[in-house]
Amino acid sequence: MTPRPIVIDCDPGVDDAVALLCAFASPEELEVAAVTTVAGNAPLATTAANARRIRSLAGRDEVPVFAGCPRPLLRPLRTAEHVHGETGLGGVELPPAVAPLAGGHAVAALIDLVDARPGELTLCPTGPLTNVAAAFAMRPDIAGKIREIVLMGGAVGAGNVTASAEFNVHADPHAAAIVFAAGAKLTMLGLDVTQQALTTPERLAAIGAIDRPAARCAARMLAHYHRVDIPRYGAPGAPLHDACVIGYLLRPDLFAGRDAFVAVETASELTMGRTAVDLWDASGAPPNAHVVQSIDADGFFALLTGRLARL
Amino acid sequence: MTPRPIVIDCDPGVDDAVALLCAFASPEELEVAAVTTVAGNAPLATTAANARRIRSLAGRDEVPVFAGCPRPLLRPLRTAEHVHGETGLGGVELPPAVAPLAGGHAVAALIDLVDARPGELTLCPTGPLTNVAAAFAMRPDIAGKIREIVLMGGAVGAGNVTASAEFNVHADPHAAAIVFAAGAKLTMLGLDVTQQALTTPERLAAIGAIDRPAARCAARMLAHYHRVDIPRYGAPGAPLHDACVIGYLLRPDLFAGRDAFVAVETASELTMGRTAVDLWDASGAPPNAHVVQSIDADGFFALLTGRLARL
Amino acid sequence: MTPRPIVIDCDPGVDDAVALLCAFASPEELEVAAVTTVAGNAPLATTAANARRIRSLAGRDEVPVFAGCPRPLLRPLRTAEHVHGETGLGGVELPPAVAPLAGGHAVAALIDLVDARPGELTLCPTGPLTNVAAAFAMRPDIAGKIREIVLMGGAVGAGNVTASAEFNVHADPHAAAIVFAAGAKLTMLGLDVTQQALTTPERLAAIGAIDRPAARCAARMLAHYHRVDIPRYGAPGAPLHDACVIGYLLRPDLFAGRDAFVAVETASELTMGRTAVDLWDASGAPPNAHVVQSIDADGFFALLTGRLARL
Amino acid sequence: MTPRPIVIDCDPGVDDAVALLCAFASPEELEVAAVTTVAGNAPLATTAANARRIRSLAGRDEVPVFAGCPRPLLRPLRTAEHVHGETGLGGVELPPAVAPLAGGHAVAALIDLVDARPGELTLCPTGPLTNVAAAFAMRPDIAGKIREIVLMGGAVGAGNVTASAEFNVHADPHAAAIVFAAGAKLTMLGLDVTQQALTTPERLAAIGAIDRPAARCAARMLAHYHRVDIPRYGAPGAPLHDACVIGYLLRPDLFAGRDAFVAVETASELTMGRTAVDLWDASGAPPNAHVVQSIDADGFFALLTGRLARL
Repeated sequence: MTPRPIVIDCDPGVDDAVALLCAFASPEELEVAAVTTVAGNAPLATTAANARRIRSLAGRDEVPVFAGCPRPLLRPLRTAEHVHGETGLGGVELPPAVAPLAGGHAVAALIDLVDARPGELTLCPTGPLTNVAAAFAMRPDIAGKIREIVLMGGAVGAGNVTASAEFNVHADPHAAAIVFAAGAKLTMLGLDVTQQALTTPERLAAIGAIDRPAARCAARMLAHYHRVDIPRYGAPGAPLHDACVIGYLLRPDLFAGRDAFVAVETASELTMGRTAVDLWDASGAPPNAHVVQSIDADGFFALLTGRLARL
Repeated sequence: MTPRPIVIDCDPGVDDAVALLCAFASPEELEVAAVTTVAGNAPLATTAANARRIRSLAGRDEVPVFAGCPRPLLRPLRTAEHVHGETGLGGVELPPAVAPLAGGHAVAALIDLVDARPGELTLCPTGPLTNVAAAFAMRPDIAGKIREIVLMGGAVGAGNVTASAEFNVHADPHAAAIVFAAGAKLTMLGLDVTQQALTTPERLAAIGAIDRPAARCAARMLAHYHRVDIPRYGAPGAPLHDACVIGYLLRPDLFAGRDAFVAVETASELTMGRTAVDLWDASGAPPNAHVVQSIDADGFFALLTGRLARL
Repeated sequence: MTPRPIVIDCDPGVDDAVALLCAFASPEELEVAAVTTVAGNAPLATTAANARRIRSLAGRDEVPVFAGCPRPLLRPLRTAEHVHGETGLGGVELPPAVAPLAGGHAVAALIDLVDARPGELTLCPTGPLTNVAAAFAMRPDIAGKIREIVLMGGAVGAGNVTASAEFNVHADPHAAAIVFAAGAKLTMLGLDVTQQALTTPERLAAIGAIDRPAARCAARMLAHYHRVDIPRYGAPGAPLHDACVIGYLLRPDLFAGRDAFVAVETASELTMGRTAVDLWDASGAPPNAHVVQSIDADGFFALLTGRLARL
Repeated sequence: MTPRPIVIDCDPGVDDAVALLCAFASPEELEVAAVTTVAGNAPLATTAANARRIRSLAGRDEVPVFAGCPRPLLRPLRTAEHVHGETGLGGVELPPAVAPLAGGHAVAALIDLVDARPGELTLCPTGPLTNVAAAFAMRPDIAGKIREIVLMGGAVGAGNVTASAEFNVHADPHAAAIVFAAGAKLTMLGLDVTQQALTTPERLAAIGAIDRPAARCAARMLAHYHRVDIPRYGAPGAPLHDACVIGYLLRPDLFAGRDAFVAVETASELTMGRTAVDLWDASGAPPNAHVVQSIDADGFFALLTGRLARL
């Protein structure tokens, strides 16, 4: 089977880093056509540098990494170094990157990649949706030429960055509104599912037991992440948000959800960035997203651990 | 022990009716000082008439019933006869009311009752909060003279009337915003808990087995309610929303929750009436509500069934 | 001709004070049935006390003064002592009031007055619309029993308290939204007209030349007002907002306007309280207000000066 | 003197067409470095085609014309063929265009042009601001490399497309919010000034008297425009909005205004796209725009007529 071509649009970030490693470790299923970076968990310069380091750590310097939009469309940039550490990678010092950034802007690259392979690319946003939205603003027609968007973002229930909103969508709610309304096939993995994918001590130990460089880095990054989130939520581990996207691509059978109409709040400061998921069809609007609601978390971590062991 | 004096501010409605019956059936614990009615599930004329009929059915014609605000503060009235039937009581024909409406407006009555018994009254809103908000608008100081507000409304997770909002709060979000911000001690029983209190066939059968007039009416109303909600939510029963308020007063040990800051969305049409419950203290605002999140549903229905058997 | 019965709902405030004096000075045309007070330019205790003092100054202690709502419906109270001085009357010490406050709440009084004289009363709000809105919330039907509402508030052009909003409407935008949508006959005198009614030195001198107690007080209050507003707007005088309402009742021929649909912004903080006046009928909604746009300012001040000379 | 290099970002549209002709007719003062087009008065295909035809009519086929964004960032496209006619040019059939569209997207072209001539370009948007906003989203730094933005859009007073908003800003309010907040030097010519620049019969006659092809087309387009707007506003002519931008560049002495902070409403449907111009510094925010408020309309039309006579 030909591997599925994907573009990962990300802001690494610990959980993005694990997502990237997992994708790079799965060449039989996934062809990482490019990595595009955006400001989010950390400023653009940091997320772009981190993406390059992770790429080198995975030994995949042939994959181009592009830098994109340095701030959200309308709102000020609000990063999350309090979660991801100063470097964005949980204070873990990765080896230096080998290959440089690709020339050109991530938004232009996204448009060119879709034009070159119409109907083929799966887009995997794991950060704020600014790059994707800017591409759709310039060329709304490419939404119909993407095979699928599988993103981490949003929530049916409570938010994490405010009472009502999840970090990625809240960071650029206008971009998210553009993306959800663009008419692309779209799968949303929100907090409802990622908060089931917890870095329990047992799961961390399994990753920590892998005696290989990439897995060792992942284990250290996750240990930081774990320490930060545990006191906040009182759960037995940190939610491993972004890696769920790659897990879903590799093993959709581990996940369950339903189709629903999702609109993104951009009008009110109180609920800014809330993904209003119309579970009971109160609006009558046709579904525009597949909303994932549950995960076989043990299966997912087993998958992840196995893939990290390959690098 | 002296029974706890309460005022039930309601819009019966099937689940309000069951709440009223349960309260009337508990004179040792609860002194129903008055019933005030508001437009909500049905127009004011209907909800006021229903409250009078239920009062007579319970044999408690000495309790005054007041009519209040006939429409929400700012938004148009949007009733729910599709859920509660034309009469608001699931198509069940109750015996005629014996006593008439009390003279005077419910809002004035609320103010007078609180002034007469400062610090004593528990207010139990089970409909839109228009009456309470109007009283607080006229006399903000009475919020500090109420012992507690225990209300049915809102949700942490998905809404029922829109993707984000629960019926009572959505019906008059501005009123709800006034009430949540008024500084009163407040307990919120939202969909998160009431959707655990389902009218399963077994629980309906237990009520249906009581051979007394009030219980027979309750059983017939609930059977209608059950039939309407089952197909919508795909759950094994209808959520018995409003009766949870009386259940909570009688047996708080059946419920669990936590304190949190709750703000009500009034700015955006998309999320209008959402109760933004700040579970993880993202806002830094001090809690203004005790948010109930779980219920021992079997215990609650056992309590309810026992009380209905007393009437 | 029978004098026209009016209720002045106000928050004195210098310009309210002048409006009251002008009304009290016109018994042949206007019967002041009551004065109701609200928080606005100053806290309720101050505005109620000021209304009583002005009433005594005018020798009209038989007119009842009621105290109403002490704060806006949803928003925090934000007074304007920086404009009206600590006492709300430009630092002018009026003689003590003779008669006490009337018993009962202004909102109840408004309802009772309308019920007692259906179709007869003209309501003259010159402050935030909280009292009127609370009355309409309790009894929406009275909107149809008021002869006319003639209010000072709003603007077609720029605001004064924010870029987009005028003080009275901004102070309680939700109340204004209720009042404009209530279906009553309504005339709006906004900044567009009141900023043409400027306290130029010549006009102030004419009032100052009247050797009578009330006029002397008015002159001193207006001198304060003039000093505060001149540097802010760079106009040759301060806009004498509230007195325009009484001017309009006495001499509508001095004013010109047109009918339009007016909606009040309650959703966005940026434009909160803007009166969106649909001058070109872009909405297609039927007019709900007569929007006054111009004034014969010389004629108005001549009228005002003549009336103050009568007291 | 070296002519000032400008880029006209437009959606012709009759008044854009006149603006283009006036700019093309002023090579000694203005170097039209490029024309970029956007959806607005008409769909993108129409506005791009119209820009090409006008360029050929002016004999300036060496100036590149780029097509840009085909719809607003978040809101649906709402064109104005009812004003500008089916063709967007008032039903006037221009001669076919000679040169084709330039390759590449207008947004990329804007970025490249600014990068190539940092600090030199004046950007002249006369349509919705989608292209400029998309460029700023990709590259916020270019806002600081533009010499000045001089745009037609917004209003201090009443709007034209809604009670509160002007067409260009309302068409893409999120784009306008991005542009006003971008930190560029910005001059706003809104309805307050353009509604003073009326196509009176005398002014139209002066243009109609020019016996040259471009002026004849302009005269016919303006005659259509005049006929459409006269009944709507009851003014003695149609406001010649977009041409004011070129007039301002050529003869700033014909205009007067002041610096102010301008924010764009994106939160509320009622006032969506309102430019909140803080004339009295109520916000305390530093000015981000020079807001033009008046025009010497006779001088402007004399200028315009003289320039059209040169083509």
